[in-house]
Amino acid sequence: MNATGPAPALAAASAPRPRTAPDADSGRPSVTRRVLGILDAFSPERPVLSLSDISRRAGLPPATAHRLIAELTRWGALERDENGLYRIGLRLWEVAALAPRGQALREAAMPFLEDLYEATHENVQLAVLDGLEVVYIERIRARNAVHVFTRVGGRWPAHATGVGLALLAHADPELQERAIAGPLRRFTSKTIGSGGELRRVLAEVRRTGVAISDGQVELIALSVAAPVYGPDDTVVAAVSIVVPSHSSDARALIPAVRASARGISRALGAPRALRRPPSATART
Amino acid sequence: MNATGPAPALAAASAPRPRTAPDADSGRPSVTRRVLGILDAFSPERPVLSLSDISRRAGLPPATAHRLIAELTRWGALERDENGLYRIGLRLWEVAALAPRGQALREAAMPFLEDLYEATHENVQLAVLDGLEVVYIERIRARNAVHVFTRVGGRWPAHATGVGLALLAHADPELQERAIAGPLRRFTSKTIGSGGELRRVLAEVRRTGVAISDGQVELIALSVAAPVYGPDDTVVAAVSIVVPSHSSDARALIPAVRASARGISRALGAPRALRRPPSATART
Repeated sequence: MNATGPAPALAAASAPRPRTAPDADSGRPSVTRRVLGILDAFSPERPVLSLSDISRRAGLPPATAHRLIAELTRWGALERDENGLYRIGLRLWEVAALAPRGQALREAAMPFLEDLYEATHENVQLAVLDGLEVVYIERIRARNAVHVFTRVGGRWPAHATGVGLALLAHADPELQERAIAGPLRRFTSKTIGSGGELRRVLAEVRRTGVAISDGQVELIALSVAAPVYGPDDTVVAAVSIVVPSHSSDARALIPAVRASARGISRALGAPRALRRPPSATART
Repeated sequence: MNATGPAPALAAASAPRPRTAPDADSGRPSVTRRVLGILDAFSPERPVLSLSDISRRAGLPPATAHRLIAELTRWGALERDENGLYRIGLRLWEVAALAPRGQALREAAMPFLEDLYEATHENVQLAVLDGLEVVYIERIRARNAVHVFTRVGGRWPAHATGVGLALLAHADPELQERAIAGPLRRFTSKTIGSGGELRRVLAEVRRTGVAISDGQVELIALSVAAPVYGPDDTVVAAVSIVVPSHSSDARALIPAVRASARGISRALGAPRALRRPPSATART
């Protein structure tokens, strides 16, 4: 339920965070910060940049930008095309594929997401929490289903999405209080707008084990999400299905989403997902 | 057909490349190289490292490693767990998701890879060429099909794989000659072992539009691959299906793989995939 092309309302949420810690001795940003600042210059809206674009966006003198970009390109963090424009390179993508909360989580989850997609042919999403935002790790887009704005690697405020509510409900209490304290950005008339309402919803998510976000990002879309547990039985991700808001059978999807979340938790080695539920034991 | 756990034969291919360009003035590696050297310290075999592991693998004094790691962690390129061990962080994964040859290609290809998987329930792979190696961008693993060693972000010598042959056959002639000049690493008795044989196979791939690699990495697996074209009608990726070597119906998969490659090419805006084939025109 988020933006491929960025929703205007999201500009602030997706803007690069300030990263200006200077060198203790010189007062200028360290070389490391400058290198990272070059990576920050690239965004979903601007994935291809000229040398002067990078220089301007990273706040670096052209000569400095040129030298650092040359080093990054030699290593493969950036790639230069035949028009002299730069983009993020394959070697950086390879290294980043080692991120346990990115590619590794995605790899473990993928068979279960596939199953969920094959069973429902609805949009399927996997996300993790980063502060008060969710980051989408995977999405399987159903071509004939409700349009979903999510992008892999994209962000969205947690309080407005099904995956975000599933994650927040099980997050550190201090983080939950920060979310409840607001501000809570509203996208539609149905977006959770008050701390009291968010507190009630999070308690409900904990009670039922599932989060339902109806029309919070766009009035036409509803998502059903469930938490995924890691090896230490804490919530590490959430999986969701997104369907048209008017679907009469949205609640019928709850068991499928929960089963998928449980399968992923089991693949990650979560003790709670390795135990049989009491009812299953009784039946055998 | 490659290694999740690394095949011993692959150690050299997956070892970090030497990156020792020193500062022109000091003769020491520049700060940028040191930062990138820290990222190089992480590998599929070693995705979680201690400070001293990183320091040793990157060849940095502990104090320098500590300072650079702290900056990388603050930005989110690395994450530190509760045991003080480091791993690649979510923010680097987000930035890397902007790589056109990584995530962006994958996003465009995914619906077609899904279709191919749903139609065949065989292992489906998407790869790009990097020098004389292929890098796997996506893999859909069939749970009841032949075991495949590929890992997303993993590499394999191009001459030994279906995707690699499909890519090499359409690569720059100078690169093809480098591959033909060898050495050609052998994994099984069926791996292409001579330049003359590779030259013949590449010509055959260009003639038929499809690459078949039978038992070259493991005797039990056969892959059928087809090239994917980009907006300038050059080959930018290859898609493949991997099946047991003894399948009598491997050739029957060729049309499905070609259709998938054509669909991805169309999604990427390749002019040749937007033209109707003459037979289709005749039929309408």
